[in-house]
Amino acid sequence: MALVVQKYGGTSVADVDRIRNVARRVVATHDLGHEVVVVVSAMGSYTDELIELAHGVSEHSHPREMDMLLTAGERISMALCAMAIEDHGVPAMSLTGSQAGILTTPAHGQAEIIGIRGDRVRAGLDEGKVVIVAGFQGVDPDSRDVTTLGRGGSDATAVALGAALHADMCEIYTDVDGIFTADPRLVPDARKLEEISFEEMLEFASCGAKVLMSRSVEFGRRYHIPIHVRSSFHDGTGTWVKEETMEEAIIRGVAHDASEAKVTVHGVPDKPGVAAALFEPLADSGVSVDMIVQNVSIRGVTDISFTVPRSHLTEARAVARSIVEDLGAAGVDVDENIAKVSLVGAGMKDELGIASKMFRILSDNGINIEMISTSPIRISCVVRGEDVGEAVRRLHAGFELSEPGEATS
Amino acid sequence: MALVVQKYGGTSVADVDRIRNVARRVVATHDLGHEVVVVVSAMGSYTDELIELAHGVSEHSHPREMDMLLTAGERISMALCAMAIEDHGVPAMSLTGSQAGILTTPAHGQAEIIGIRGDRVRAGLDEGKVVIVAGFQGVDPDSRDVTTLGRGGSDATAVALGAALHADMCEIYTDVDGIFTADPRLVPDARKLEEISFEEMLEFASCGAKVLMSRSVEFGRRYHIPIHVRSSFHDGTGTWVKEETMEEAIIRGVAHDASEAKVTVHGVPDKPGVAAALFEPLADSGVSVDMIVQNVSIRGVTDISFTVPRSHLTEARAVARSIVEDLGAAGVDVDENIAKVSLVGAGMKDELGIASKMFRILSDNGINIEMISTSPIRISCVVRGEDVGEAVRRLHAGFELSEPGEATS
Repeated sequence: MALVVQKYGGTSVADVDRIRNVARRVVATHDLGHEVVVVVSAMGSYTDELIELAHGVSEHSHPREMDMLLTAGERISMALCAMAIEDHGVPAMSLTGSQAGILTTPAHGQAEIIGIRGDRVRAGLDEGKVVIVAGFQGVDPDSRDVTTLGRGGSDATAVALGAALHADMCEIYTDVDGIFTADPRLVPDARKLEEISFEEMLEFASCGAKVLMSRSVEFGRRYHIPIHVRSSFHDGTGTWVKEETMEEAIIRGVAHDASEAKVTVHGVPDKPGVAAALFEPLADSGVSVDMIVQNVSIRGVTDISFTVPRSHLTEARAVARSIVEDLGAAGVDVDENIAKVSLVGAGMKDELGIASKMFRILSDNGINIEMISTSPIRISCVVRGEDVGEAVRRLHAGFELSEPGEATS
Repeated sequence: MALVVQKYGGTSVADVDRIRNVARRVVATHDLGHEVVVVVSAMGSYTDELIELAHGVSEHSHPREMDMLLTAGERISMALCAMAIEDHGVPAMSLTGSQAGILTTPAHGQAEIIGIRGDRVRAGLDEGKVVIVAGFQGVDPDSRDVTTLGRGGSDATAVALGAALHADMCEIYTDVDGIFTADPRLVPDARKLEEISFEEMLEFASCGAKVLMSRSVEFGRRYHIPIHVRSSFHDGTGTWVKEETMEEAIIRGVAHDASEAKVTVHGVPDKPGVAAALFEPLADSGVSVDMIVQNVSIRGVTDISFTVPRSHLTEARAVARSIVEDLGAAGVDVDENIAKVSLVGAGMKDELGIASKMFRILSDNGINIEMISTSPIRISCVVRGEDVGEAVRRLHAGFELSEPGEATS
């Protein structure tokens, strides 16, 4: 008997028929003799509808009350799921994030899970019940106020619950078939991966792959919970995200991210403390900086470029401008028309020539590289926004990623 | 400075504009220097929509999960109300029934309030906040499961909270102007009452007046909380329900109830224990019996008639039939086409001739009386269903209830 956590996203519970379908799947797992904990998101676009309702009432920000409002969404889907499961004769019980003991930081709308007091979940399982837990939500133990976890929060709930309950696996049911060697919308012959390591998945997630957020992967890695990302629309296996993969790929896949913008501070005096003077105030303003590149100094001045999510751009530009005078810099440039393309693979660290091959493929296809950054298992290049599709396709073909095993060591 | 509990029903928070309107009213009370606790229902017909959704998923009964589902309704309206109030610069905080410490029996869908642990409400008030509490819902302290209170539950929440917090008054905002001498839809010149005693209101509520449910009135009476029933659409005063009224009316008004049915057991042997043998199993089956009339015995047998809510009729008939043999009775008759018309007034007990005048008015207008029952401050007659409008109008006119003071002592 295994303990399985299954997470179903909004599209998987979008209507009455799909909820019944989820129930069938849960009951099938239960009937195999497993203990099942189900984590659900709100139905379809219901969270967006609630946000729209709130904006109809008020144009201002009400973080505590917005969380109170949005947590109605999972409450509805989880109760309906419990009913559908009970209709199969399997006892079920739904629990809110608060009831399930999902303890978080107080940051409304973007709370982080800091602990799980899963005694009611455990008690429900011990009574032979399927326990359905609201994803995306928790409770701040100090104020006892309800919180939400922000984007990808339901996945984090599922993997964190899996860790707390020492689950054997966590299944993330979604509307895609798994993790692919590249985005299939850009690359028609992109291949579904059988498996990927936690480290590789973390790089994928931080480079624009949206199917699984970094913090869920991080939970899985830290607590050794294998994660199976799979489709809720059919029974085929998806992609296993786990500690060790059978084969170590040189290149696991190509990720891309067109959601960032580039900020360049020109004519910065090349002296100690300049970078800190720029990036400390950015961090203090809550701007999340991704890549940072400082060019070679010429005549004692240099340029510093960095990328930020486009949603942070207004703030990033303001901070950069405000310190141009302090730094004695020449000025600030902003470029919103960029995209990042990344190669990820754990075997890359042992293989020479991957970076040069990547640069060659891009240059042979007339794609200019504006910034480069690397980790031991990743190489990222910033290119023009309009070049990103071509860059991903050329790299995917150049490294023969549609051929299983071709690019593995 | 007073502590005021204001309750707004579903029609008062049915859309964004009405929620903003509620906020203006709450803020006006707050700006007078009062502490304000707001109790809200779900928006408009939202509870019905959730019930429909549940019926789409399952045809079976899932009491615990249905309560989990339905409590999403007030969660949404209370968060939106809090946002709208905060937009006026007044700090506000919404609390679920569970967070507000509304403790109930475990009976899902029809739980009764057994206590209130209002520390979070009190703490919010002490911080200068308007506290918005979800009506209709509570928590069973043993299972920690969420419960709902059934019809009229939000009023009960408001009055019970008023009692626990030692509020100075409880305002019930609704879609009518107050309590009337008769249903204005039947009697166009029905008069809005300035005031009515708790005892009279209890009789009104038990005789078909739907504006305030018995249990809310009972809370007000027991804990001495004056209740002001008023319109949420204008600022005019409504009707005060309170301990002592300025004037003791002989007849306060006419109530009617067309939701019951009559069951008659014929040819019952007139011997001790027969009534108990009938009404004990009815009570055990959860059938709520209203009027009971036993006719004069003729040759050792009698007829026993009783009325029940039409929704309990199937069960009542089954119970009655099952014991006909045990009692040695002749048979069971059911009549669904009845209505009850009642005169209520605290001064009635000191005045002779009210009952005979009532019977005379009905008989002069060709309305046959099928059953009679009385309390010290009420007389009820069961008539044919089609006669109820005429009966109410004739009694209202006959006792001159549209004239203020005319029927008072």
